[in-house]
Amino acid sequence: MKNRRIVLAARPVAEAGLEHFRLETLDTPPLAEGQVLVRHHWLSLDPYMRMRMNAGKNYAAPVEVGAVMVAGTAGEVVESRHPGFAAGDLVVCQGGWQECSVIDATAQGAIRKVDTARVPLSACLGAVGMPGVTAWIGLATIIEPKAGETLVVDAASGAVGSVVGQLAKARGCRIVGFAGGADKCTYVRDELGFDACIDYRGKDFDALAAELEAAAPQGVDGLFENVGGLILDVVLSRMNAFGRIALCGLISGYDGAPMPIRNPRLLLTQRLKLQGFIVSDHLPLWPAALKELGEGVATRRIRYRETIALGLEKAPEAFLGLLKGRNFGKQLVRLP
Amino acid sequence: MKNRRIVLAARPVAEAGLEHFRLETLDTPPLAEGQVLVRHHWLSLDPYMRMRMNAGKNYAAPVEVGAVMVAGTAGEVVESRHPGFAAGDLVVCQGGWQECSVIDATAQGAIRKVDTARVPLSACLGAVGMPGVTAWIGLATIIEPKAGETLVVDAASGAVGSVVGQLAKARGCRIVGFAGGADKCTYVRDELGFDACIDYRGKDFDALAAELEAAAPQGVDGLFENVGGLILDVVLSRMNAFGRIALCGLISGYDGAPMPIRNPRLLLTQRLKLQGFIVSDHLPLWPAALKELGEGVATRRIRYRETIALGLEKAPEAFLGLLKGRNFGKQLVRLP
Repeated sequence: MKNRRIVLAARPVAEAGLEHFRLETLDTPPLAEGQVLVRHHWLSLDPYMRMRMNAGKNYAAPVEVGAVMVAGTAGEVVESRHPGFAAGDLVVCQGGWQECSVIDATAQGAIRKVDTARVPLSACLGAVGMPGVTAWIGLATIIEPKAGETLVVDAASGAVGSVVGQLAKARGCRIVGFAGGADKCTYVRDELGFDACIDYRGKDFDALAAELEAAAPQGVDGLFENVGGLILDVVLSRMNAFGRIALCGLISGYDGAPMPIRNPRLLLTQRLKLQGFIVSDHLPLWPAALKELGEGVATRRIRYRETIALGLEKAPEAFLGLLKGRNFGKQLVRLP
Repeated sequence: MKNRRIVLAARPVAEAGLEHFRLETLDTPPLAEGQVLVRHHWLSLDPYMRMRMNAGKNYAAPVEVGAVMVAGTAGEVVESRHPGFAAGDLVVCQGGWQECSVIDATAQGAIRKVDTARVPLSACLGAVGMPGVTAWIGLATIIEPKAGETLVVDAASGAVGSVVGQLAKARGCRIVGFAGGADKCTYVRDELGFDACIDYRGKDFDALAAELEAAAPQGVDGLFENVGGLILDVVLSRMNAFGRIALCGLISGYDGAPMPIRNPRLLLTQRLKLQGFIVSDHLPLWPAALKELGEGVATRRIRYRETIALGLEKAPEAFLGLLKGRNFGKQLVRLP
């Protein structure tokens, strides 16, 4: 079977560009025992992929130059040499930026069947997939919100941030978002039900701090951090004693720009906890998370939005746009 | 009774100096019901006091201009209008930079009797007092060391750092210190029993990182941070996945110098936990801590060193020296 894939053509030294990707066509190999061939319908694009393009110490091995870019994918089993899977099964797997993938189904967490009776397949890469579970785990294991507390999340209209906010509301919190642009802020407030959303574009520290003070008059008890840099500094300055910061992403620095935490003294004087986490470290929590998220989406208590690029060849451009915040909600590639 | 005291004469705008302190003499007021008059024999000088000299958001109210500087003190009850205390009792209290203090003994944690049968009174302000308990609580509640792990502490010869290292050794860890100067490093290795100690003076990031790599070949699992700035950046770069950082102090920035955390990406990629803490938030843990520390000092398994200034009028100079690392071990003022 012919397969088209996108490989890392070269490592970016600063900002990533189209020149760092290359489209290739090749044949899928025959299956070995325990393997499954999956045709992808959907490809998930996520900010963490930018870090995997760099060499050096990271939480996972970098993508090698010439290797296929990593990604979560949703699709259909075409052929199986594993007893747990049969042709026609709908699955989510780490298939990468390609139209088909051969998955070792014996590896833990490599592939799982999904039930699309009440949840669309694409949502299994978003609110009911890795991004949604990321939101759930950051809240459950680090922020541990209590009713009446004020939480903040940035990239609030995105795949993770949107779920953070809706889960926080369900837990009785006041939730304030940061997003880029008036349209996203309106969506975050009116459709996702956040109490407030601050448009960070073109504003300096003092302007953002003043807006946050108005939006979070009781201070901030928890921060779900996806961006880093200026927004992190601003929210830190408004954190209450014993606040918790779940460090999920640092998009603002993924292209190599410095993004120091300028005033770590606040971490001390306010006795804050700041903890980095990665969703794949918490596999035992996934079933509980997916249950709440699936129920939420099925009953429309959890809403989400998708930006869809059509065709594998559009993945690099869509990914670069995601890093600039040009997407609105979950960024996907639909593979025809 | 005549009392001499040192008050905050003015707030420093950057570096603190002698001009920010003023010596005053006045009479002690008559005791109200529940109060105790204490004559201080020892006055504890600690870095946190520098933060209390500044206005603005902090973990405790700033010292007001004209008010007595805060300090832990050890001494003897002279007069008591509280049934729990009698003249002659040896006590530790928050007496401040003065020769006598009137303490409200009804306030929780304001004053406690100490047993000097096996522990010197001065140690009740050091290894068997607030600094020792600080070391114990940072380890117990944040770092949670496991045998075989590598821990790092800076200001390693100081009142807190020296106890951190000795408690870590007792828990089966490899312990690496940072200290300023060859004499302190020799003391930390040879007398306190650290596995290694790095003299940070005059070295840049790369030099310190190379020395740390040699001293901690398996990487760093826990950091007890007293200093901040360059040392924190260096240790961060060597932290293992799931490492813990107990943020106890940031001496390097107390005079207002910027001390950003330059590479917070490491907090994310290594899934680190960084948590600020203050010993007075953990009063329920003090008895267990004081028991282990008292037993350790009594049996000489916990060693410590003191730098002693003589007379209240020497307190400002001794304090400014402490901020520069001119002390060796616990800085005290002995009141004759």
